[in-house]
Amino acid sequence: MQRWRFQGNKELASASSISTNIQGVLSSLKQNLNQNDTRPTIPLGKGDPSAFPSFRTTSVAEDAIVDAVRSSMYNSYAPTVGILPARRAIADYLNRDLPYKLTPDDVYLTPGCTQAFKIILTVLTRPGANILLPRPGFPFFEACTARNHVEIRHFDLLPEKGWEVDLDAVEALADENTVAMVIINPGNPCGNVFTYQHLHKIAETARKLGIMVIADEEYQHLTFGSNPSVPMGVFGSIVPVVTIGSISKRWMVPGWRIGWLVTSDPDGILQKSGIVDSIKDCLNFSSDPATFIQGAIPQILEKTKEDFFSKANSLLREAADICYDTIKEIPCLACPYKPEAAMFVMVRASSFLSSLLEKMNVYIYIYELLFKVKLDLSLLDGINNDMEFSLKLANEESVIVFPGVAMGMHDWVRITFAVELSVLEDGLGRIKAFCERYAKKLL
Amino acid sequence: MQRWRFQGNKELASASSISTNIQGVLSSLKQNLNQNDTRPTIPLGKGDPSAFPSFRTTSVAEDAIVDAVRSSMYNSYAPTVGILPARRAIADYLNRDLPYKLTPDDVYLTPGCTQAFKIILTVLTRPGANILLPRPGFPFFEACTARNHVEIRHFDLLPEKGWEVDLDAVEALADENTVAMVIINPGNPCGNVFTYQHLHKIAETARKLGIMVIADEEYQHLTFGSNPSVPMGVFGSIVPVVTIGSISKRWMVPGWRIGWLVTSDPDGILQKSGIVDSIKDCLNFSSDPATFIQGAIPQILEKTKEDFFSKANSLLREAADICYDTIKEIPCLACPYKPEAAMFVMVRASSFLSSLLEKMNVYIYIYELLFKVKLDLSLLDGINNDMEFSLKLANEESVIVFPGVAMGMHDWVRITFAVELSVLEDGLGRIKAFCERYAKKLL
Repeated sequence: MQRWRFQGNKELASASSISTNIQGVLSSLKQNLNQNDTRPTIPLGKGDPSAFPSFRTTSVAEDAIVDAVRSSMYNSYAPTVGILPARRAIADYLNRDLPYKLTPDDVYLTPGCTQAFKIILTVLTRPGANILLPRPGFPFFEACTARNHVEIRHFDLLPEKGWEVDLDAVEALADENTVAMVIINPGNPCGNVFTYQHLHKIAETARKLGIMVIADEEYQHLTFGSNPSVPMGVFGSIVPVVTIGSISKRWMVPGWRIGWLVTSDPDGILQKSGIVDSIKDCLNFSSDPATFIQGAIPQILEKTKEDFFSKANSLLREAADICYDTIKEIPCLACPYKPEAAMFVMVRASSFLSSLLEKMNVYIYIYELLFKVKLDLSLLDGINNDMEFSLKLANEESVIVFPGVAMGMHDWVRITFAVELSVLEDGLGRIKAFCERYAKKLL
Repeated sequence: MQRWRFQGNKELASASSISTNIQGVLSSLKQNLNQNDTRPTIPLGKGDPSAFPSFRTTSVAEDAIVDAVRSSMYNSYAPTVGILPARRAIADYLNRDLPYKLTPDDVYLTPGCTQAFKIILTVLTRPGANILLPRPGFPFFEACTARNHVEIRHFDLLPEKGWEVDLDAVEALADENTVAMVIINPGNPCGNVFTYQHLHKIAETARKLGIMVIADEEYQHLTFGSNPSVPMGVFGSIVPVVTIGSISKRWMVPGWRIGWLVTSDPDGILQKSGIVDSIKDCLNFSSDPATFIQGAIPQILEKTKEDFFSKANSLLREAADICYDTIKEIPCLACPYKPEAAMFVMVRASSFLSSLLEKMNVYIYIYELLFKVKLDLSLLDGINNDMEFSLKLANEESVIVFPGVAMGMHDWVRITFAVELSVLEDGLGRIKAFCERYAKKLL
């Protein structure tokens, strides 16, 4: 019998199969959809409104791509760090919000924010190293860190404090092997915006601990509350900052796969510690954004009209309001924080579960009084946690929401409000009906 | 004094700094250009003719991109395996040359051929594993394999046999930890095309050894000699084949960053051995080609007219002829094989060095007779190897060629003929002058 000597990489499978994999979780949910439901599926699981007419990107961005392709100037390989005009345009764009000037040399082009994270993580990887990640956080960061055998230590974001970082926890978690802490601001999944003062405290804490800050600013400027979004790079002279960002969210084009990794390091600490060289080494093995998309970047960043952004932000504000107000009407769900940014709201489903449980307990108590037997909790009809909540909601209402377990938060779900308003209202209506039905069924 | 706990990843630096890094080698050569030379630099180091008017891509491809962007249907994230219409179009495109039918499920989209290699290599990585790579080979494969701690074992391509694989060497090199062998066909850097019979022997050898074949078919159909290019997948029922390819070379758009990894595995061996699942796992961590470029793929593959390809191949044939004939006129260079495909010719510079050396020896002999002292070989004026040859050529003639050392071949250089003909003639003229000057100088 023929014997073959190759086999799949099992380690890869284990890193990929941890529940922190957005694609994997979403495809489980999709597999649970009921094919006989004639209603359209409502996708509230993912931050990608680009398919909805109201969130179509600006024609300025499309024109920039068309011009770049038609010029035939950008069919060649690009330098691994990215082409100079794009790096310069990104530096200029970010400099509008910084107290000092980034140069093009501080900017590296990547195929989106996730790949930028992968690069800085690979750069920081060494035996025994650990990094501090927020909880709730971004599943890709968890999976990628696990894959690189870097230890993850979680600090909490505090819902009662507008999802601020628990800085005491950060100090308690860090040791001599801690190399970085990650913040996501504006917040995914919490829809919050850190104040200037809080970011300043984060910078001071990181400096005290001797670690860098990796700032995911994918949602920068997608804000619609009272806090303006301040880039972490503002504090680059307190602590070296690696900022990752992209045009994906602000321009509503996540499929264009172009983003950046930027070093805010006015004191040259990242240079001296070999981080900058290591970023360049890592880019030799990484894939680049398509050259003509790089070529379109200056035009996209410089020519997009302010009213495109303000219209998008108004729409997000309206959607966030509808989402928040409707959730307040659903007794078994709770939303501790009204989102002020990004595309998500975190909703506590535990009150749903515990309200069911409370009602069940009464029932169990009466039942026990009458029959003196213990009831099996499986009577809760399968909704024991947020994953099951999400799976049943997909199956019964064709609504996809993202279970908190994949972001380290049990009994929470993340709901995207960045969809067409009519779709959002339909989806929230179905969630409400679902919750009411389950509450009734058990009493 | 502030202490920082992070530092660059040294292991990454060592993998990146091995001489097998195209970008690194090319940038050393570019740094050696003489800024005072007013002549244009002739880039014969890289297989990327897309910047030259004669090699501009077809308007069909540009139109496909423009249509995809304007449709606004492809601004969203794509599935990690790629969008179905693109996978189907690629399967159909490859099926034209296969005896059985690939399905879209056999096709995975990647940002170019290099990233496809990175994926299959990561899939095959396990402690102690080794893979067989061709010498001369492709520097990225070497760097990427080293980076993944997979042992590299080189088999030779035989110049005297039209750069065929030394299959005896393959058998001698393989052991129970060998998981795959890599072939590059049509050949980079040798410009050769394996015959059907030779590919069949490769398949039989790989089957005997129990290893898979990874076939880099980046230059598929870019042939202009007597051998037609047969895809390795034809032999998929003898041995499982993973084929990597892209539109980069045939459509002259390497900067578009879209390619594929395809499993030719009619007997389901890659499925059973976990390779297929592992490819999917790996794609969860990898970057995707831009969605609208994926969206353009069906139109690009189906609508491109045959005359675009035939014109490009004629031009390459003409360029290859010019290159081969001119090199024959340069006494100290030798080209054992007239290229029939791809964009490169391998030129032996050792005859240059040895002819210098021979002449030197005469000189040394006479000198010794007269003065009875040994001459220092440094009298060879710094041209001791192909790297120095390339560096001096860049500096003195503003011509970039790729040194063989970076492909495992000492005293050879790789010359790209895929440039505008006038540029090629200018470049070859300068190489000739350079060689004549050095030959004279030393006698």
